[in-house]
Amino acid sequence: MTEHATRWGILGTGNAARTIAAAIRSARDSMLQAVASRGGHRREQSRALGPRELHDSYEALAASDNIDVVHIATPHTAHFQNALLCLEAGKSVVCEKPLTMSRSEAEQLILLARSKGAFLMEAVWPRFLPAVIRSRELVEHGSIGRPQFVNTSIAIHLDPAAHPRVYDPSLGGGVINELGSYPLAFAIGIMGPVLGSKAISTQSGLVSENCLMQCVHQAGLSSGFCSLKFQGRNQVVIVASDGQLTLLPASGKFETLLIWSGNNGKEITEDHAYAGTGYEFMIEHVNECIREGWNESPLMPLADSLNMAGALESCNQQCSMPA
Amino acid sequence: MTEHATRWGILGTGNAARTIAAAIRSARDSMLQAVASRGGHRREQSRALGPRELHDSYEALAASDNIDVVHIATPHTAHFQNALLCLEAGKSVVCEKPLTMSRSEAEQLILLARSKGAFLMEAVWPRFLPAVIRSRELVEHGSIGRPQFVNTSIAIHLDPAAHPRVYDPSLGGGVINELGSYPLAFAIGIMGPVLGSKAISTQSGLVSENCLMQCVHQAGLSSGFCSLKFQGRNQVVIVASDGQLTLLPASGKFETLLIWSGNNGKEITEDHAYAGTGYEFMIEHVNECIREGWNESPLMPLADSLNMAGALESCNQQCSMPA
Repeated sequence: MTEHATRWGILGTGNAARTIAAAIRSARDSMLQAVASRGGHRREQSRALGPRELHDSYEALAASDNIDVVHIATPHTAHFQNALLCLEAGKSVVCEKPLTMSRSEAEQLILLARSKGAFLMEAVWPRFLPAVIRSRELVEHGSIGRPQFVNTSIAIHLDPAAHPRVYDPSLGGGVINELGSYPLAFAIGIMGPVLGSKAISTQSGLVSENCLMQCVHQAGLSSGFCSLKFQGRNQVVIVASDGQLTLLPASGKFETLLIWSGNNGKEITEDHAYAGTGYEFMIEHVNECIREGWNESPLMPLADSLNMAGALESCNQQCSMPA
Repeated sequence: MTEHATRWGILGTGNAARTIAAAIRSARDSMLQAVASRGGHRREQSRALGPRELHDSYEALAASDNIDVVHIATPHTAHFQNALLCLEAGKSVVCEKPLTMSRSEAEQLILLARSKGAFLMEAVWPRFLPAVIRSRELVEHGSIGRPQFVNTSIAIHLDPAAHPRVYDPSLGGGVINELGSYPLAFAIGIMGPVLGSKAISTQSGLVSENCLMQCVHQAGLSSGFCSLKFQGRNQVVIVASDGQLTLLPASGKFETLLIWSGNNGKEITEDHAYAGTGYEFMIEHVNECIREGWNESPLMPLADSLNMAGALESCNQQCSMPA
């Protein structure tokens, strides 16, 4: 830990907070300065994350002078208010996905961040993985021709008993809020902004447990399947005019990149393995942004988050009734 | 060729007729008895297909006593009238996909075939390939758990100059009619009937050159990407609760089946290579149906064709305007 270590604060003490705290500890040039919880038994959970400071209110952390950037790891429906609080205090903010519950809220946060000159980013962590960055470079360099279709399939089994928040409509439950950011972020990263979207679900409960989102982009189409009902292989396929890329995971980590060439019909395998959980790449990228004084990430820009918020809002509306 | 060889007639002389004539020649127990064209220069094209008889009208072939089954290889918009003609004459009919231009027309053909006791089938040839049959068996035996999502991606480059019919709205042009039957047939074969569908396209011309169809089935969801603008790898991925199957083609033949197990994270490769074009499996299946006196194929039943016709009609309507 150097004198230039970025000092992180975390709002919240749940699963996301634990994952981020571990990533901050393992990332270069990072320090977990503070965690804020709303007191009671959560104080013990805060302490277990190992920060230098504990705060019993989000306001206290937002006001602290010892913090360079706040990671918001509270339930989905609280993101907007919590991000607002920190940005108002002039803090840089990294917010768990989805950034907000609506496009309008996302727009307000972005405008506020810009007016404050504060860094703001949605924590779509797969964007920063080596294999994912490599796939975007291959596309940008024209290695597989023009991209035409991106298909992402993400299934993570989250049992209602163990994860009640994910199934609670009042906390922004449902698969679209929980997992929908992933396929959208992959598709937008390759194909550019979503111009229109449609979504369907088999809709078996109060909230959607699976969904299929399809999007029109300027250059082509994308499709995203998400499910909470089983543990899938999870993969991203980028279909292009001269080839095809497949991002294959080992337990969600996307370490393997298959590169198929339409010219010779051959497929090669690139290994982009890493030792950690994968979140450390995002933390180190944010450290760099903060160090450089950037107010926006070049890898996860705010225009993408605004576009994703609109697509998620639309897909949620469409999946609240059967197709 | 035995005395029990099934005697085929073909209506039409275009690309589909040439493909089917070659398949009839290479399939077991088959004979190309007759080809019907509408006279003029097409008589030479008919003769080139090598049948025993030539007819200058579709009516003459439909009335022939030497024919066991008629393959309808005329443009999409003619399928309904041509199939009607043959079924009225009591002939068994195999019809190029899409069976008709609407669900209502498909329903009329099916009712007529049933009232005549005649065999009727839509020529969705990939259904009969060994690797495809094997994938359905694996799903039915529960080898990969419950299917949740089927994603098919089919891109076949058909240049407007060389294939004007495919881009002619008056001949049922557009990618949905040309290729849409493939993803629907794969999805329905695994997930059961389509209960609702949505479709999008980047819609660059008079007819859609690409499309993305998404469907709700009882058990899950499916997605089908199709494009006429480039030659893709083409693949089918079946995502299930305990594993995943990938049908990979060599030039559309789907000879390779990848079986991934969610239990051990391992993938094995099954080779289902064959020497021919692949159409011969469909021809031999129809020969068997005719020999057995079946009025419907167990592998490509009429309920599936009716369901596909409805989904295609709906997707065509949705893609006639931007998403």
